[in-house]
Amino acid sequence: MSKKLTTRKEDYSRWYNELVVTADLAENSAVRGCMVIKPYGYAIWEKMQAELDRMFKATGHQNAYFPLFVPKSLFEAEEKNAEGFAKECAVVTHYRLKTDPDNPSKLIVDPEAKLEEELIVRPTSEAIIWNTYKGWVQSYRDLPILINQWANVVRWEMRTRLFLRTAEFLWQEGHTAHETKLEAIAEAEQMNNIYAEFVENFMAIPVIKGVKSENERFAGALETYCIEALMQDGKALQAGTSHFLGQNFAKAFDVKFTSKEGKQEYVWATSWGVSTRLIGALIMTHSDDQGLVLPPNLAPIQVVIVPIYKGEEQLEQISVVANEMAEKLREVGISVKFDNRDTYKPGWKFAQYELQGVPVRIAIGPKDLEKGSVELARRDTLSKEVVPQDMVVEKVKGLMIEIQENLFERAKNYRDSHITEVENFEEFKEVLETKGGFISAHWDGTSETELKIKDKTKATIRLIPIDGKMEDGKCILTGNPSSQRVLFAKAY
Amino acid sequence: MSKKLTTRKEDYSRWYNELVVTADLAENSAVRGCMVIKPYGYAIWEKMQAELDRMFKATGHQNAYFPLFVPKSLFEAEEKNAEGFAKECAVVTHYRLKTDPDNPSKLIVDPEAKLEEELIVRPTSEAIIWNTYKGWVQSYRDLPILINQWANVVRWEMRTRLFLRTAEFLWQEGHTAHETKLEAIAEAEQMNNIYAEFVENFMAIPVIKGVKSENERFAGALETYCIEALMQDGKALQAGTSHFLGQNFAKAFDVKFTSKEGKQEYVWATSWGVSTRLIGALIMTHSDDQGLVLPPNLAPIQVVIVPIYKGEEQLEQISVVANEMAEKLREVGISVKFDNRDTYKPGWKFAQYELQGVPVRIAIGPKDLEKGSVELARRDTLSKEVVPQDMVVEKVKGLMIEIQENLFERAKNYRDSHITEVENFEEFKEVLETKGGFISAHWDGTSETELKIKDKTKATIRLIPIDGKMEDGKCILTGNPSSQRVLFAKAY
Ligand SMILES: [Zn+2]
Ligand SMILES: [Zn+2]
Repeated sequence: MSKKLTTRKEDYSRWYNELVVTADLAENSAVRGCMVIKPYGYAIWEKMQAELDRMFKATGHQNAYFPLFVPKSLFEAEEKNAEGFAKECAVVTHYRLKTDPDNPSKLIVDPEAKLEEELIVRPTSEAIIWNTYKGWVQSYRDLPILINQWANVVRWEMRTRLFLRTAEFLWQEGHTAHETKLEAIAEAEQMNNIYAEFVENFMAIPVIKGVKSENERFAGALETYCIEALMQDGKALQAGTSHFLGQNFAKAFDVKFTSKEGKQEYVWATSWGVSTRLIGALIMTHSDDQGLVLPPNLAPIQVVIVPIYKGEEQLEQISVVANEMAEKLREVGISVKFDNRDTYKPGWKFAQYELQGVPVRIAIGPKDLEKGSVELARRDTLSKEVVPQDMVVEKVKGLMIEIQENLFERAKNYRDSHITEVENFEEFKEVLETKGGFISAHWDGTSETELKIKDKTKATIRLIPIDGKMEDGKCILTGNPSSQRVLFAKAY
Repeated sequence: MSKKLTTRKEDYSRWYNELVVTADLAENSAVRGCMVIKPYGYAIWEKMQAELDRMFKATGHQNAYFPLFVPKSLFEAEEKNAEGFAKECAVVTHYRLKTDPDNPSKLIVDPEAKLEEELIVRPTSEAIIWNTYKGWVQSYRDLPILINQWANVVRWEMRTRLFLRTAEFLWQEGHTAHETKLEAIAEAEQMNNIYAEFVENFMAIPVIKGVKSENERFAGALETYCIEALMQDGKALQAGTSHFLGQNFAKAFDVKFTSKEGKQEYVWATSWGVSTRLIGALIMTHSDDQGLVLPPNLAPIQVVIVPIYKGEEQLEQISVVANEMAEKLREVGISVKFDNRDTYKPGWKFAQYELQGVPVRIAIGPKDLEKGSVELARRDTLSKEVVPQDMVVEKVKGLMIEIQENLFERAKNYRDSHITEVENFEEFKEVLETKGGFISAHWDGTSETELKIKDKTKATIRLIPIDGKMEDGKCILTGNPSSQRVLFAKAY
């Protein structure tokens, strides 16, 4: 709090790390790559969970819970999926510790408690879930299965960053089973649309919908739908994915059903997920050099009231007004904190709530008592105005909508002005290095070309836009024919 | 569904297992000792979570999230705690798999990806959390810390049973830090009271509050507060615990603060938790030979409406009435399912919802359409009555309260009639073998005696009652003087 944040211009990456820690969102733990999500950061996650959960249930999904561990033999059953995750798995090999005979205050792994079969800490749950679905599905009457799980998963990443890439993270993973291919595709598309709706309306982050190239697809999927957002440093961030898995898992785990026509058929599958990574996207999309900026729809505290006073008597007078105001704001569903702690000065509190991105700050001092006014400050624009006390509720109600919209518009303007069409590889490299953002370019459709471009520039195909217009052109690298532009970017 | 449950009298333990599986609450998984919590079981857990979370927040607690893994060096820092859990730990030793050179379709643990320090999958989080709190606490202004975590934990139990004892389970664990001993004790007592309130008012399970004997205390605690319930087979079940941890963890992790007087002092700690084990208690307290019986406060579906019809036209007529009724019930906050599936017959549905413990069933047939009535059945008493359609909402509203109270009363009558005072060890053994339940007896206060009794009878001291009356007596085993009766029982 005492020292200023590094600015975004100075060092974007350092700005991000400092902000996450000083705004009390999360911190690194004693376990390499695992984070502690602090109460303020977790409160944002809870708001995200509540809304997503509501949206999942409104579309017929139910929650369930599957084991943390996956026996190695199940893990390897779907070959592509296993290959995709094998290199970053935490593996449990023993089930007991014992006292170190050489040092009785220490513990060692008990070599006699070795598991017969190693257990993988789930990096994703397709394997354990499809092995379970096998027992649940006999006939078409057992379908569809529309299940979601809120859980922790572990992927042993070597380079980690708070929220964006951590060895353990929290997420939801939907796993559905269907009678037909078309139904499964419709489900995968529906969930990608729900993610887009949530990210745009609640997180105020504009996204582009599309599908991944083969190269960027989820391990084991036939099609990966995704939404991509653009951060303030011009790098893209994958905000959510929804996979059409075909019959790959049904075949790997032998999940068949008797159709209405009496035939034995393999079940069709989808899976879809978003994670605490979204909090990283939230931070990087809206925040500024003063700290976090939160959209009202996800702010744990939407309004903070700070009293400015000398002596107990003044505080009491201000408290009467503040408590009444807080009460009225709560009645219209706005979350309010009245920070009357006498252990911190108003200036410290102003800086703290600015850093923590509280959308609206109300200050009440002795002059406000006289005039029946308050000072109201917006976090998004950092502007202030004096408002009569009896107008505060109406004013704040309006601001909740206005700030939410303003953040979305601001982010959308930035994003829209950072989609650049290029016609050849020289232009591509130049835009990538100078302006960044999404680059809309023709590509010949091969993984080979995509990997060559990645190798030369670190940019990948973020998506093949779903509502991109068809247009004939030539691949920027090979000159081979192309029928549609795709979006490239460097990405988180 | 087709075959009947084993009755409680035939085989209580088998009845329980069959019920859990056939009522679609949970099932065993491919991972030894780990369960799959199915959507219906998980919906009960979500209702429990929502209410507990509300109670925790109303008393000033916030949620956060700490890592799944505990490095071995932190795990062993608090010696008693480490000792208590070392024998049942899942240990991660490697972070990568690789293709088996002898069999390219298989994976093996990559010996080159061995961790320098093993990671313990948390059996409880005191160690990782207190290591984190160290960085959060400098002055008295940083206290109290009132944090709760919803998480999965792993204890490698050898004999497991669905919900009651599983290698992985879901729980909440509160971890608080305080300036003074008295404040920490008050917190531990408060949380035990909150558990009692929740279990009695929401789960309709009567509990007795007390403290554990030294022998049954949580590893690392100075005092363990607990609530104990009695199952229908006369065995006790610990429903929740709250621990006063003294300064043990603060000392192990060197967590000190500067007091208001400017002195360096160690922080005082509590921790408290309840788990998915409570679902086992819920099942065993209320259910009968027909299946699950759920208290309305926790039932995912409070009312089910089943149409009895021949042909599409009748179904349509009944649907008009049913949908309107469902709508009105939902308006007063009651969760309703109208089961209009034509793939199952009414008799099958009746049996299914009975098995699944839905508190109220409404059946509507052609005669009901004529008469403007419905048939309403209570799950708790299995009684039926005919009710005019326009009285249904009032009737059901009343039943939600009545059934909740009836279940609590029924369980309380059973519990109260199964607390038996005994004066000597012969009586003790006889009551234990014939009647079961809680046995109220004098005990000389030593662990030695307690362990001898356990050895001879398998009964343990479930608790030293908090509001037990003081009474001089003689220990049933040793004849040594005692000033208070304690409650013994065989326990889950
Ligand atoms: Zn720019
Ligand atoms: Zn009895």
